[in-house]
Amino acid sequence: MMAEARPSAKVSQARLWSRLEALAGFGALPDGGVNRQALSQEEIAARRALIGWGRELGLSAATDMIANLFLRFEGSEPDLAPVLVGSHIDSQPTGGKFDGAFGVLAALEALEALIESGLRPRRPIELVAWTNEEGSRFAPGMNGSTVFCAPDALPNVLDIKDAQGVSVGEAVARMRDAEADVPLRPLGWRPFCFIEPHIEQGPVLERAGLPVGVVTGIQGTRRYRVEILGEAAHAGTAAMAERRDALLAALHLIAEVEQAALAHADIKFTVGRFEIEPNAPSVVPARAYFSIDLRHPDNAVVDCLDRRLHQIVAAPRSRCAVRLQQIAHAPSLSFSPEIQKLLGATADALGIAHMPIYSAAGHDARQLHQVCPTGMIFIPCRGGISHNPAEWASPEHAATGARLLADALWSLASA
Amino acid sequence: MMAEARPSAKVSQARLWSRLEALAGFGALPDGGVNRQALSQEEIAARRALIGWGRELGLSAATDMIANLFLRFEGSEPDLAPVLVGSHIDSQPTGGKFDGAFGVLAALEALEALIESGLRPRRPIELVAWTNEEGSRFAPGMNGSTVFCAPDALPNVLDIKDAQGVSVGEAVARMRDAEADVPLRPLGWRPFCFIEPHIEQGPVLERAGLPVGVVTGIQGTRRYRVEILGEAAHAGTAAMAERRDALLAALHLIAEVEQAALAHADIKFTVGRFEIEPNAPSVVPARAYFSIDLRHPDNAVVDCLDRRLHQIVAAPRSRCAVRLQQIAHAPSLSFSPEIQKLLGATADALGIAHMPIYSAAGHDARQLHQVCPTGMIFIPCRGGISHNPAEWASPEHAATGARLLADALWSLASA
Repeated sequence: MMAEARPSAKVSQARLWSRLEALAGFGALPDGGVNRQALSQEEIAARRALIGWGRELGLSAATDMIANLFLRFEGSEPDLAPVLVGSHIDSQPTGGKFDGAFGVLAALEALEALIESGLRPRRPIELVAWTNEEGSRFAPGMNGSTVFCAPDALPNVLDIKDAQGVSVGEAVARMRDAEADVPLRPLGWRPFCFIEPHIEQGPVLERAGLPVGVVTGIQGTRRYRVEILGEAAHAGTAAMAERRDALLAALHLIAEVEQAALAHADIKFTVGRFEIEPNAPSVVPARAYFSIDLRHPDNAVVDCLDRRLHQIVAAPRSRCAVRLQQIAHAPSLSFSPEIQKLLGATADALGIAHMPIYSAAGHDARQLHQVCPTGMIFIPCRGGISHNPAEWASPEHAATGARLLADALWSLASA
Repeated sequence: MMAEARPSAKVSQARLWSRLEALAGFGALPDGGVNRQALSQEEIAARRALIGWGRELGLSAATDMIANLFLRFEGSEPDLAPVLVGSHIDSQPTGGKFDGAFGVLAALEALEALIESGLRPRRPIELVAWTNEEGSRFAPGMNGSTVFCAPDALPNVLDIKDAQGVSVGEAVARMRDAEADVPLRPLGWRPFCFIEPHIEQGPVLERAGLPVGVVTGIQGTRRYRVEILGEAAHAGTAAMAERRDALLAALHLIAEVEQAALAHADIKFTVGRFEIEPNAPSVVPARAYFSIDLRHPDNAVVDCLDRRLHQIVAAPRSRCAVRLQQIAHAPSLSFSPEIQKLLGATADALGIAHMPIYSAAGHDARQLHQVCPTGMIFIPCRGGISHNPAEWASPEHAATGARLLADALWSLASA
């Protein structure tokens, strides 16, 4: 960090906040929340706005086969591997204004501050908005960062379908149609490093009264899809003892898993998706489908619950068959110590109070960690609430995160 | 019953069966089942076929404001109140070929047999296909028979919406467009009596080895809509103790009601509809909606469970709010002894073995029972399976039911 070069001084809280408000207009819900699911018309429109803002600053836009969006600030040595910074702009169906969007717009603000400072880094700096981080429309999520880090995954990811039968490949093609002016770039290149700013999505920073967290690692996740196969029957005539009720079987299975999970402190156990067929009031449900999401900082706890889940599924159950499929498994990880050290030192130099913090939520940084030195900056979010229209971060904290980011990018791009 | 006039002799098993097969083509599913929900394009097409078959026999079609379809065989004294006979042709989303359809086509077959016999009854006989008996698309069901018996209910019924937001009124209007050649008749008239033939939808007749049941009454139903209001949260960060998980609250509530219900022998307890929001794998569910359907031959048992359900709902639950709404309540009832006696005597005269049988399922006859002497004829269905693509009745049993019906109609229309 050179004392004479501090782009952080040019970070504008008002400008960053006004872009956060503007981006939240794409997919805005009446309750103040945001529904801007991956590769939707709402996300396409939001990306057009983002591309426009970047071009006004002289950034050049590019995309790839999985529709990741890059906005490049050229370095004085264009052949050096770029510093990559950003997050995602897709949201949950009833999401908020900050999850993902803050990281992308803090990166844009940091680049604008660099440009206003008249600084030109050695390395190029690229802002990135990863495709489908959330995984709510197309499950599982993190499609863009996954394919970026492992291009061989592309064909399988393009085949994932949403509830209406639309594939990722079809949705990406529609987005390409709307972005014909954005050049396509090959997959397979490697950045110098990756920094992802994000709201904490938990209560730790708020309770500690600190504006910034330097993220030490990410909690692991195992996600499953469970299918219960029963038999449809008439609600008025089929005797209880002769039914194969998929809903009741699902309910009892979930109760058992819940009980096993709650035996572990700090476990996160979520059945976030649940559907039955034929879903008619006077018909005994024939099928039930649901997700199970297990997370814990200690990989051993999740592994232990995984074994218990298989035992529970294997037990005989109300004359229904059960199919269990693991659809995602990401062990807990620790971020690059060098990046953590740099972020901490930069915050110290700026007089920004900070603390190390562990991420309970998954992020695209999980994928990037596999291919380059990676780190994250957290800012507080009110009440720890996220994936919810009430999600909120203060303008001051947003700007503080962008200031730390601006100086850190300058250091990294000068390396 | 006059020995010299037996239209039953003209009932054709092959003709009845071929119409059952033809009707099952409207909304046919690949697995052999039928999806012909109320007021759908499939039902509109099936009604066109039915109207065509009726007109070939010289029957005149009419409809009313709730889209009930009538096919009239004129009597020698046209001013007498008509004998009404029929059922419905809408199905569950994964229904079978016989529920409803058998009753309507047995009535058509009985009328054709009467006509072939050269008989002209004193009273008119009208075949009826009631609108939306099943209640799967528009809940609750029995819209057509309810409005027929209580025309004041029309405005509320027309306002009921399906999952896509289409109202009964809009769907009826679309059906009217397709049936512009069918005259509209006022509501509020009263038939002389009503007979509904139907498959049993239970195992009693099959186990007894008898081809016909004379129905003594219908089991009562109470149906509820339950709404659980929690709060969306991030599956990776929200601590279990601080969540307001609507799905887990719903599952625990259902488990309590299930336990209370199973304490009563012969109870039927069904949660046939269940939905959550936002229904995304990494979001703690904010809301859950589900149906509860309770049935028992003894009204006192259902009343007792109703009180228990209110207690369970009133208990504090996982920091979620619960809303309970009763959406249907039909006490158990007994059919006209005169009709039961006539059906039994007619079967005896034909040499058809029969037994008295109680209906566990609800039928349009429940509504008609309130306004005229009403009865039902059951035929066996294989394994007691109904509301299922595997639903099956034999051609012989179908024809036997139609023969009993033909002679009974002749007796009733001669009265």
